[in-house]
Amino acid sequence: MRNMLELLERVREQKPLVHNITNVVVTNFTANGLLSLGASPVMAYDKEEVADMASIAGALVLNIGTLTTEEIEAMIIAGKAANENGVPVILDPVGAGATPFRTKMAQKVLEEIDVTLIRGNAAEIANVTGESWIIKGVDAAEEEGDVKQLAQKASELLNCTVVITGVVDFISNQGVTNLVSNGNPLLTKVTGTGCLLSSVIGAFLAVEKDEIKAATEAVTAYGIAAEKAAKQHKTVQGPGSFQIRFIDELSHISNEDKSLAKVEKA
Amino acid sequence: MRNMLELLERVREQKPLVHNITNVVVTNFTANGLLSLGASPVMAYDKEEVADMASIAGALVLNIGTLTTEEIEAMIIAGKAANENGVPVILDPVGAGATPFRTKMAQKVLEEIDVTLIRGNAAEIANVTGESWIIKGVDAAEEEGDVKQLAQKASELLNCTVVITGVVDFISNQGVTNLVSNGNPLLTKVTGTGCLLSSVIGAFLAVEKDEIKAATEAVTAYGIAAEKAAKQHKTVQGPGSFQIRFIDELSHISNEDKSLAKVEKA
Amino acid sequence: MRNMLELLERVREQKPLVHNITNVVVTNFTANGLLSLGASPVMAYDKEEVADMASIAGALVLNIGTLTTEEIEAMIIAGKAANENGVPVILDPVGAGATPFRTKMAQKVLEEIDVTLIRGNAAEIANVTGESWIIKGVDAAEEEGDVKQLAQKASELLNCTVVITGVVDFISNQGVTNLVSNGNPLLTKVTGTGCLLSSVIGAFLAVEKDEIKAATEAVTAYGIAAEKAAKQHKTVQGPGSFQIRFIDELSHISNEDKSLAKVEKA
Repeated sequence: MRNMLELLERVREQKPLVHNITNVVVTNFTANGLLSLGASPVMAYDKEEVADMASIAGALVLNIGTLTTEEIEAMIIAGKAANENGVPVILDPVGAGATPFRTKMAQKVLEEIDVTLIRGNAAEIANVTGESWIIKGVDAAEEEGDVKQLAQKASELLNCTVVITGVVDFISNQGVTNLVSNGNPLLTKVTGTGCLLSSVIGAFLAVEKDEIKAATEAVTAYGIAAEKAAKQHKTVQGPGSFQIRFIDELSHISNEDKSLAKVEKA
Repeated sequence: MRNMLELLERVREQKPLVHNITNVVVTNFTANGLLSLGASPVMAYDKEEVADMASIAGALVLNIGTLTTEEIEAMIIAGKAANENGVPVILDPVGAGATPFRTKMAQKVLEEIDVTLIRGNAAEIANVTGESWIIKGVDAAEEEGDVKQLAQKASELLNCTVVITGVVDFISNQGVTNLVSNGNPLLTKVTGTGCLLSSVIGAFLAVEKDEIKAATEAVTAYGIAAEKAAKQHKTVQGPGSFQIRFIDELSHISNEDKSLAKVEKA
Repeated sequence: MRNMLELLERVREQKPLVHNITNVVVTNFTANGLLSLGASPVMAYDKEEVADMASIAGALVLNIGTLTTEEIEAMIIAGKAANENGVPVILDPVGAGATPFRTKMAQKVLEEIDVTLIRGNAAEIANVTGESWIIKGVDAAEEEGDVKQLAQKASELLNCTVVITGVVDFISNQGVTNLVSNGNPLLTKVTGTGCLLSSVIGAFLAVEKDEIKAATEAVTAYGIAAEKAAKQHKTVQGPGSFQIRFIDELSHISNEDKSLAKVEKA
């Protein structure tokens, strides 16, 4: 895959506005990650303004991590405005399967909105599609089963691009599946790294219509930033300092890092 | 106290799910602190899902720091579900006494839910029990009076374990009071260190039924992590970098640090 | 301007309670910044308690960054209580102009409350006053036009002190305009640095009635802290580590840094 990280430069030039309706745990981390990468984050939640904001955005990211009944209405309004304006919509079904409410709400979003891409761990994606998968809280339990098959099946069922993240990440649409092996285990010790990835994918979708290409580059660049951060042995001494260096590295990754990319066709 | 930090390993093995209904200021810090320690944090706030989440959790932490009238209802629903399922409930009455609303809401939780443990500063605990104590905003003013007596009286009145934190921390139940002198003044310069401690105590209560033992170990381990972070003179240059190193140290503390514990019977 | 940073000491001695009704993205950063500076932050949002909290505060900061229809009511209640008790009110009209809702809500606050000071970028201030100015999301687009003139006109129209921040910051009231050139571009790569500045100005207004003096010192001290943080080349490697060092430096700036102040009459 030539020019693996070429979209990064496009993100930095265009600084796409990424409209996030996300959970209260990760708002600050999400905004700082997008800013560091070079995108332009905005959070807007009220029913009165979400359609206006989503319409002018480069991407809309819907994250159900601390969803309330009031917010779901705003998400639907924002999503419909995005659909009408050709703005890509990313769904992050945090904790789907952990409670019936979350599963139902994720499915409601998928029914009422034309979702461009869904990103979650294997358990979340399985639960959204009605597959049974072990889930504890918002973290996926031991992965069992064929994740590649899950990604492809979910993509068909939900009629959108599917990104399943884990030790290895799967990006799948219309029978094509890419597999990315970049990343670092410390990502699992920092809250919201999955949520931020969903928003970063949004930034890439804002500058590239080829969904598989945009998502694969986003996931790869993200994983490389994590690897580079984890290597800073002098300053990274645990999950706290890793988080900070990771934000730093999101501003530094560039096309020069493309030799670090571990991407293959699955 | 032998094997002072033995519960730490149990937390890391069992990775208890700690369900937090907490304030918007500290959600990210709380999640990252719990993750670094080895627990599994989840935030869930909607009335439609809190009972489901609390029922499968190892502990439920209720924090009134930015409480709204809508949230109190969700807290009561979650608390009752926790009670029915034998899940320990921790109350953090942030700012009780600062406004009549906070005092009333903290007391409402205590009336309607069987609270396992309450943690606050001296002013907050005093105000919840109806004692007058000087309070300014959410921080306890100069401590006066006998904190040990306050802890014991509160424990009797509220019929639960009481943790009063300050320069010295008191853990009290049924006439037994432990006193922990670990910690560092920088903890008072970082927002949410009290809130995170309440959630950390939740993680320990999830793996140990002896409440005094669980709370004393949690408070001690937390204080030791703060001491170890503050000693990193090369990288800690103020409250910002202390916060990051403190999160790091929560992942490093272990039974090997038990010689640093400063615990005694009060 | 002699004794440029003398108010800093007053903030640290008096530790003013700054009541923030702010957006969900920046709450943690705002609280930690105020704490590090030496002020006493509190967040309180419910209609039932905001009047009580605002009445005992040294300053009230209203920030519409993720405003909901419910919150605007609480802001008005808090603002009126502040007005009745002589508590200065700071308005941060985040993203005014980005959507009609935000512009309208900022104007509603200005109509119903006696606002002491408004702080925003040029686009936000222009939009609040009805001037057209290019805005994309919550960030000001390329600045055009005479910012000094905008500041003075806004001050007359809104009958309050106006702070417009950018590469150069303008502080204006009753025909007097100060210009501050301190700061560092990394501030634009960290979310909420404008929001935190509004709260820091609140802390200074809590200890000094001369609004121009208080705001100019706050903006200057803030910019100097950013410059000092950015100079830490060993530890600052991007927006993440800059944010942490900046929080650190807020606790270190003192009157000894006054030679770094770049203030002039505009």
